[in-house]
Amino acid sequence: MQIPTNHISLATTLRNRREKLAKLINFPAILWSGSRSSRNFPANNFPFRSSSHFLYFAGLPMEEAVVRLERGKLELFMDNAPGSSQLWYGEMPTRDRLAEIINADAAFPMQELKSRATNAATIPVQNPTTKITQSDILNRDIYASNHPTGIDLELTKAIISLRLSHDAMALTELKQAAAVTIKAHKAGMAATKDAQFEANIRAAMESVIISHNMTCAYPSIVTVHGEVLHNEQYHHPLQIGDLLLTDVGAETPLGWASDLTRTWPVSGKFSPTQRDIYDVVLAAHDACIAKVKPGVEYLDIHLLAAQVIAEGLVNLGILKGKAEDLVEMDAHALFFPHGVGHLLGLDVHDMEDLGDLAGYEIGRVRSHRFGLGFLRLNRPLIPGMLVTIEPGFYQVPGILNDPEMHQKYQDIVNWEKLEKFSDVRGIRIEDDVLVTENDAEVLTQELPSDVDSIEYSN
Amino acid sequence: MQIPTNHISLATTLRNRREKLAKLINFPAILWSGSRSSRNFPANNFPFRSSSHFLYFAGLPMEEAVVRLERGKLELFMDNAPGSSQLWYGEMPTRDRLAEIINADAAFPMQELKSRATNAATIPVQNPTTKITQSDILNRDIYASNHPTGIDLELTKAIISLRLSHDAMALTELKQAAAVTIKAHKAGMAATKDAQFEANIRAAMESVIISHNMTCAYPSIVTVHGEVLHNEQYHHPLQIGDLLLTDVGAETPLGWASDLTRTWPVSGKFSPTQRDIYDVVLAAHDACIAKVKPGVEYLDIHLLAAQVIAEGLVNLGILKGKAEDLVEMDAHALFFPHGVGHLLGLDVHDMEDLGDLAGYEIGRVRSHRFGLGFLRLNRPLIPGMLVTIEPGFYQVPGILNDPEMHQKYQDIVNWEKLEKFSDVRGIRIEDDVLVTENDAEVLTQELPSDVDSIEYSN
Repeated sequence: MQIPTNHISLATTLRNRREKLAKLINFPAILWSGSRSSRNFPANNFPFRSSSHFLYFAGLPMEEAVVRLERGKLELFMDNAPGSSQLWYGEMPTRDRLAEIINADAAFPMQELKSRATNAATIPVQNPTTKITQSDILNRDIYASNHPTGIDLELTKAIISLRLSHDAMALTELKQAAAVTIKAHKAGMAATKDAQFEANIRAAMESVIISHNMTCAYPSIVTVHGEVLHNEQYHHPLQIGDLLLTDVGAETPLGWASDLTRTWPVSGKFSPTQRDIYDVVLAAHDACIAKVKPGVEYLDIHLLAAQVIAEGLVNLGILKGKAEDLVEMDAHALFFPHGVGHLLGLDVHDMEDLGDLAGYEIGRVRSHRFGLGFLRLNRPLIPGMLVTIEPGFYQVPGILNDPEMHQKYQDIVNWEKLEKFSDVRGIRIEDDVLVTENDAEVLTQELPSDVDSIEYSN
Repeated sequence: MQIPTNHISLATTLRNRREKLAKLINFPAILWSGSRSSRNFPANNFPFRSSSHFLYFAGLPMEEAVVRLERGKLELFMDNAPGSSQLWYGEMPTRDRLAEIINADAAFPMQELKSRATNAATIPVQNPTTKITQSDILNRDIYASNHPTGIDLELTKAIISLRLSHDAMALTELKQAAAVTIKAHKAGMAATKDAQFEANIRAAMESVIISHNMTCAYPSIVTVHGEVLHNEQYHHPLQIGDLLLTDVGAETPLGWASDLTRTWPVSGKFSPTQRDIYDVVLAAHDACIAKVKPGVEYLDIHLLAAQVIAEGLVNLGILKGKAEDLVEMDAHALFFPHGVGHLLGLDVHDMEDLGDLAGYEIGRVRSHRFGLGFLRLNRPLIPGMLVTIEPGFYQVPGILNDPEMHQKYQDIVNWEKLEKFSDVRGIRIEDDVLVTENDAEVLTQELPSDVDSIEYSN
């Protein structure tokens, strides 16, 4: 773990965060960082990723550490690395040193935690081993957190209300992640000319992230099969006529994420049909970003994307009817089956470990409608909120070849016309948009969203 | 999961492996592949890595799958992906298709497993969630596997005896991993001239691995602080006068690993002191590799490395006395505290999930001696065994500044002389060496071990 150089402002930020928390809850909260997950044997681990809730208040990705927050005070619990670990891992900062850097009010060895755990609320971590420890220390069963109750629910709501709106330090980090992510996408574009396989582009992009000492915030999607939404395969050859969809984002060492998608032609030039559909998605993208400001319902932005896409597809002769009616019938979702975006912060789907508690305003639940059910965010926008805007167009065989779907939308889709667009398997354009006091700021705007304007070379 | 093109030979190999297993045990064995570990929220996972024991018999890294082996027959248990997953992950090969590819004798949905689990042995997986399933299906507690008993111990020994000696298909994979790993190291060397930080070199190296659609077999070590043996930090600047130690290895899509270390000067030129020590390590490296052949005790290779290093340090005036006596006193371990290598295969420390059961011949246990205790392998070499040979020299503050060590070796070390070598923090030279019928083959020999002969450019 690298100690950030700006740890004085980190300490101030952390104090502000816990003081804000203290105004929302009147009981202690204990948050675990978690521990490493083994890959194929105990000494060969996946890279450590701290729980985001811990990171938010503790600032640094300390392994197997705990913070206890009460009335604006932070107590750090962790054990110093044993002397024997120095040989393998070098000299580690001590508990006292870390406590100083994050401006903890007190620091204790882990064995003290149990005696200070009475009546404390928590949020479960992802690591199953640590979850057992949580249950043990709190003396009650800690389950997955989609349905917390009692003080756990109160804590969850309090943390959500803080994390929904990013403070200055978070924004500094998020902008750093965005800047590196932009460079990664530019490197991917530049590498296209000489690349043979998807994996070559992925390498060019992730290499930029690694070189900046960051990590990937999520498994990269780098594919000529953009119609597979979470494609994690990279072995397909790049062929003239293919569109390449890259959804790749960096995460800073302190855990803050970026999330960016571009789609460009392997040949450097769209076919007319590809350009037509790209323009539809781009229009949706631009219209949605123009709409982002405080007070706007994110659902309305999603519906705007659906509307613009439906309209565009009507103009291209792919859909028949009036855009509003088509959206009402979920016809847009035949080609745009996911939500227009989500919260972004310490997690790429921020706070999704809490199910829909963060994404959905209290009292709202996911729709069962085909065109709305995959929407991850349904809240009014507030200043400091960072969201993605990521409309897309996909020809998903599982949807378009489904007999039920085919039947339902038989007269709505011009299937013959659609066949002419068979060289458009998947297009997505995604940017990270910050809600400001009166308006919005696109953190990823330095990368043009109309990729035709991008030079395909270094 | 990409289906390998050579699946006919894969199927034959798998049949041979299970038929060999059938000669060693007379009870059924059930092996789980495991499932994904969550990173920061349930939908954001670390890349899936199958259990190596499963991979050995099932061939493909199928997620949440199980094989049951009995009398040379293989039954595959897995559930087909639900239709809804097509949207997100694309069309997945069905159970029946996978069963065909790996030439399974039968294939069942997962719910059939419980009724076919009677009296079956197993090996615990790393994933805690799957370990709970193992206990549930087998109706007994499955713990970490360092001390299996009964039929689990018998199965473990049988699998070890198979996996200790690699078959033709394994060797094909291992050689592919080695070839890509060599390219990665060459890319790292070529990138040194223009690099500013360790992270830049790491990016150049891992980029080669990603570009070949492989993964890193273990967390890369790319550091100017080679004295930290498992250094996972990459933020240090590269300075003229530094040595850069890179321990980076590729793993093929089917899970076979490589493990390679080189150490080279950031400036492109060793200082005289660096060259002196490098020559000592290189002499140990060469002597050990020359000694590898069937029947030789790996412990003796380790002791040879210790001997050559001790001798070299005596010649440089750093140690005083006769090499044999120094090794007897563990004085070599002041500078070479780890073992000279380990098994390599599906795991970079092959079968280390089994503790020392694979690394240590039955009846042998780890030594308590400072100079032998970190030796991971203590067996006679047999044809088909792949081992690393990786002597090193390190100035570990935790060892050299330890008052007890200082006291113990006060008259053995010429501390004043040692100070002249302060620009040598850590050197390791590691290759992958296959024991052949009568001799040995260095799988990584294409990369010169005397890095002075390497061109620092593309």
